[in-house]
Amino acid sequence: MKPIQVGLLGIGTVGSGTFNVLKRNQEEIRRRAGRGIEITMVADLDTARAQSIVGPDVRVVNDARAVIANPEIDIVIELIGGYGIARSLVLEAIAAGKHVVTANKALLAVHGTEIFAAASAKGVMVAFEAAVAGGIPIIKALREGLTANSIQWIAGIINGTTNFILSEMRDKGLDFAVVLKEAQRLGYAEADPTFDIEGVDAAHKVTLMSAIAFGIPVQFDKAHVEGITQLGATDIKYAEQLGYRIKLLGITKRTTEGIELRVHPSLVPAKRLIANVEGAMNAVVVNGDAVGTTLYYGKGAGSEPTASAVIADLVDITRLHTADPHHRVPHLAFQPDALSDVAVLPMSEVVTSYYLRLRVADQAGVLAKVTGLLAGAGISIDAVLQREADEVSGEGGTSTDLIILTHDTREGTMNDALAQLQNLPTVLAPIVRIRKEELN
Amino acid sequence: MKPIQVGLLGIGTVGSGTFNVLKRNQEEIRRRAGRGIEITMVADLDTARAQSIVGPDVRVVNDARAVIANPEIDIVIELIGGYGIARSLVLEAIAAGKHVVTANKALLAVHGTEIFAAASAKGVMVAFEAAVAGGIPIIKALREGLTANSIQWIAGIINGTTNFILSEMRDKGLDFAVVLKEAQRLGYAEADPTFDIEGVDAAHKVTLMSAIAFGIPVQFDKAHVEGITQLGATDIKYAEQLGYRIKLLGITKRTTEGIELRVHPSLVPAKRLIANVEGAMNAVVVNGDAVGTTLYYGKGAGSEPTASAVIADLVDITRLHTADPHHRVPHLAFQPDALSDVAVLPMSEVVTSYYLRLRVADQAGVLAKVTGLLAGAGISIDAVLQREADEVSGEGGTSTDLIILTHDTREGTMNDALAQLQNLPTVLAPIVRIRKEELN
Repeated sequence: MKPIQVGLLGIGTVGSGTFNVLKRNQEEIRRRAGRGIEITMVADLDTARAQSIVGPDVRVVNDARAVIANPEIDIVIELIGGYGIARSLVLEAIAAGKHVVTANKALLAVHGTEIFAAASAKGVMVAFEAAVAGGIPIIKALREGLTANSIQWIAGIINGTTNFILSEMRDKGLDFAVVLKEAQRLGYAEADPTFDIEGVDAAHKVTLMSAIAFGIPVQFDKAHVEGITQLGATDIKYAEQLGYRIKLLGITKRTTEGIELRVHPSLVPAKRLIANVEGAMNAVVVNGDAVGTTLYYGKGAGSEPTASAVIADLVDITRLHTADPHHRVPHLAFQPDALSDVAVLPMSEVVTSYYLRLRVADQAGVLAKVTGLLAGAGISIDAVLQREADEVSGEGGTSTDLIILTHDTREGTMNDALAQLQNLPTVLAPIVRIRKEELN
Repeated sequence: MKPIQVGLLGIGTVGSGTFNVLKRNQEEIRRRAGRGIEITMVADLDTARAQSIVGPDVRVVNDARAVIANPEIDIVIELIGGYGIARSLVLEAIAAGKHVVTANKALLAVHGTEIFAAASAKGVMVAFEAAVAGGIPIIKALREGLTANSIQWIAGIINGTTNFILSEMRDKGLDFAVVLKEAQRLGYAEADPTFDIEGVDAAHKVTLMSAIAFGIPVQFDKAHVEGITQLGATDIKYAEQLGYRIKLLGITKRTTEGIELRVHPSLVPAKRLIANVEGAMNAVVVNGDAVGTTLYYGKGAGSEPTASAVIADLVDITRLHTADPHHRVPHLAFQPDALSDVAVLPMSEVVTSYYLRLRVADQAGVLAKVTGLLAGAGISIDAVLQREADEVSGEGGTSTDLIILTHDTREGTMNDALAQLQNLPTVLAPIVRIRKEELN
């Protein structure tokens, strides 16, 4: 049988990894897929560079639409990125009856509903394992491996740049800005690191996982997004003393009130496996009512790890394209006519526990005042850590750090209490508030 | 569309979990699968007990063949276990054109070649996610998620009983026999724990993973199998001092000489995630040439975790049964006509590093003699730990423990060297030899 013919749009880091792995392991992949899988056409603006990567046997063009229009091409891989031209090309490829593989989390998190609807109408597959957690087959686990479960929650380290930065901050006791520079020098952070460090990339990914886990549409605009730029070495150190690590987590959770969908730094018990995921590695914890807690770990980025996911999608399509389109694995795990409209909760309705650090005057009665105010708001305290007075404050007295771990509290309640605490004359600096997840 | 009808053979722990989860999550599962999935007939020798579990709406019989003969039944779940009647029933179900789901690792590890050939000839699926690592979707990860890769090696904690025992031995400093009794009392070990503690269960599972990873037939008879019954608290403690944990690992590895397939206790660096998998939990590490190292963690046994895997297989079959049988996901990941005959290496050809503990006379020159003999055999030493002399030996002198970590050595070479070492008059007790895996 003639090989499946694949057209590649954009041959950068992931594209060249995909080409190389597909070539290197072609015999083994053919034995798995039952058919050869070959990239026979590549579109890239830099045609000379592209041709030098793929060699003389592959046709290189500078017009992506020429790939889509080629009737020989069965599958189109979109590795251009972004929301603009990538969206048009993916929709055009679908309209032309091509199956599509993409690593574009931003595109799917924002325009997924439109794209998946078009694909369903046309009876083609849009596969995106590479869009979340690089080479870890987490989309497959959620969409196929855990289908028996009512999934309860997902919490993932799904951005390698920020996990590298947090690991370095902890190891070396350095502050964010210093480590970011080092990460940029080493190639772990981009020149413009905004999408990573502000949590946007993680939010794209957790939005996709949320849809697949709970059978809801992709709703990036409903995600609460906080990055790590405000984190200091001080809080990482205090967290450590209390038995926790701080990780940037993408979290989505099913509650009786609605779906939580949020990215922010979180304290995680140091004894959890995910707390021990260091450097640029990724890990996703999934809790289902039948299976309990499972974890998936691996490289979340890079040329060949991401290529591993892209090619797995190519093999899936090769194996399954003959199945009845109305029954084969749905794009978002649930049948398109069976999505639920359970609402994503506003952040003020989210219930979680908290780490608070207050810089307070070292005076009698301050602890009583603070804890009394929290008690009055109905916020119950799990642990208190008060440091030795260590600093002469501006007002002539000494000051100290008061660290409080709370039990579960509604975020809106916490926000009100924090506003009141911040107004106390004995609270001398902006209060640090970091959410805490037990993940058990 | 009418629901997929499932017949269940054997309703014990996993069977009742499967029935209950399928019922509890039926609406969500239907939204995922595109069709309802219902257990409509159950065969069990204890029909009264079975009927009390499934209620009056499900037909219960004491003859498994009545389920297989029922033309309404689309999928047969085999949860009887063992190699005997289970083999006949699975083959009969296939012959009757039923898809089969089984958790029976022993059956597939020994009779898999026959069973998969029969299924391929008949065009039906035999799914077995539940056979390895309970609810962790590791079969799916290997067979579908990592298809891009030339898989290099797999190392797994795939038996919860032995991992529970080893965790307890380490935590409490107790010896094997004591902890086994406790594990039996708590229900973590069976009354006859032989299959678990002797490594047979883990060997069944790693045999299946080996076939899927490397595209070779299932060959349980070629596996090297050692359990944990000879392990002492002393070696767990020394390993800890050297920065290692001892785990019972199922290992399979691709080498230029052939495939390694083995189960035995192994030292693993304490900093690896898998070294921190405690209690009855399972974890599998998979290394592929493109993806690098990935890890999958979760509950490896129990009613609902295992049911999670059984039901995932039911959903897979429901989604994919319309696909061309020659192209849908092959049972063993590789197309049946594309299996390889790469040989499984005899244990004497396996290359690994070692932990050795020698009880030696506390005399000048003993270390030189021992290390000289190893050097003469071409075995290079990574580290030596010599304890203070601590015990009066039978011969009137003091004795001490000499611990040696070696670099990679062929097992046959090591066996010869150990025989020579054991004959030294200054070696006072049987030498302890535990293999060591860096897993990096």
